[in-house]
Amino acid sequence: MSNHPFCIFGRQPVLEAISAGKRFDKILLLKGATGEEVKKILNAAREADTPIQAVPKEKLDNVAKKYAKFREANHQGVIGFLSMIDYHTLDDVIHHVISKGKNPLLLMLDGITDVGNFGAIARSAECFGADAIVIPSQGSAQINAEAMKASAGALNKILVCREKSLVMAVKYLKANGFKIYGTEMKGAIELSKADFSVPCAVVMGSEGDGVSKELLRQCDEKIRIPMAGFTESLNVSVSAGVVLYEAMKQRS
Amino acid sequence: MSNHPFCIFGRQPVLEAISAGKRFDKILLLKGATGEEVKKILNAAREADTPIQAVPKEKLDNVAKKYAKFREANHQGVIGFLSMIDYHTLDDVIHHVISKGKNPLLLMLDGITDVGNFGAIARSAECFGADAIVIPSQGSAQINAEAMKASAGALNKILVCREKSLVMAVKYLKANGFKIYGTEMKGAIELSKADFSVPCAVVMGSEGDGVSKELLRQCDEKIRIPMAGFTESLNVSVSAGVVLYEAMKQRS
Repeated sequence: MSNHPFCIFGRQPVLEAISAGKRFDKILLLKGATGEEVKKILNAAREADTPIQAVPKEKLDNVAKKYAKFREANHQGVIGFLSMIDYHTLDDVIHHVISKGKNPLLLMLDGITDVGNFGAIARSAECFGADAIVIPSQGSAQINAEAMKASAGALNKILVCREKSLVMAVKYLKANGFKIYGTEMKGAIELSKADFSVPCAVVMGSEGDGVSKELLRQCDEKIRIPMAGFTESLNVSVSAGVVLYEAMKQRS
Repeated sequence: MSNHPFCIFGRQPVLEAISAGKRFDKILLLKGATGEEVKKILNAAREADTPIQAVPKEKLDNVAKKYAKFREANHQGVIGFLSMIDYHTLDDVIHHVISKGKNPLLLMLDGITDVGNFGAIARSAECFGADAIVIPSQGSAQINAEAMKASAGALNKILVCREKSLVMAVKYLKANGFKIYGTEMKGAIELSKADFSVPCAVVMGSEGDGVSKELLRQCDEKIRIPMAGFTESLNVSVSAGVVLYEAMKQRS
């Protein structure tokens, strides 16, 4: 029952960490595991929007071997990965930004799973003065050591919100006066024509799939980055950088 | 004496490839190798600006094992890595661009050794309408399968010049009427204030070291990307994307 700095092994230790207010990026649970403690873990995870992955015993054994090789690690069918950062609610972020007298600019990432890209985007967001990054609880890059490194420390400086549903988050932002810009290769509005002077959120999708259709439908405007060449699209971290640069320029 | 698609093993095969007009990204040569064929290879490499690396026998054996594992590969102390792209001279590029009636925009990369960043930069350069990328013969990312993939095919579409000396290349460009912009964190001119409407080349350095001092001295202007946050700098492929976006905007 030993703990790697970012891993907690075993049912009771994971429950204790939850009671102590610690947050997990995800929890691995043995497929078909049952019992009172497992139920408590599932409930706590649901409340905290923590993704649970049901995995075979081999997966748990491998993680235990990898992260606890110099100690005894009896995972008892449960391994929790502690968050390397604190997550914030959208509400917290909006209040925080407004209390500073700042005009909010948020970056929402829909399905960016590559940790290197995620880290580079966080770095650009911090450099260009975005207030927070909003990611979904499921289907986003894990904020692990590699992401932290790619962010060059920016993930310790910028606020990150983890939301169960980005569609709900967008609706909430709109109700709070935010303008929502979806980015799309064939967006109707050219980037520099979009008005970033208002409180706004920019939604970026993955290179392969773009912003999901449901989310795009919720966006007030669809913007495109102008291109001159024949290559289909930019690397997603470059796209995010260019959009944030343009937003910052308009605001300075 | 068998050939991997991008590797040529053995003295005579490498010489034959050179005679046939093939270009190498680099040639590995056994430390202390001598003989008539070795001399010929060294001369040909010098003429073609091909980097030669003197390496121990183990290195050559490992490469042969890695790239020729299903065939007999007797490297005889010489392994050549064929270029995956054709390189062009600066002269060719200038003539090509001018003959198309285009206003040239070149991107010079000083010491960008990460293949992923290099590929992403090539992709941005093609997307934003740069005419060519200029790299040094030594100390640049190898244009291998990984770089090709990161470029999403852009490296097959944009011209690449490989120059023995970037300082000499800059002098040549200046003599041909180009304005040279060096990028620097503390550059005197803010990016959007630089005039990209003239024939110009932008010089980007590595994240760690920036543009080398000697090269920076040759630049007409030093530009900086404006920042709002506390993180020291952007990822180099994001920086390149932002600069090229600004240049394209001014030209459209």
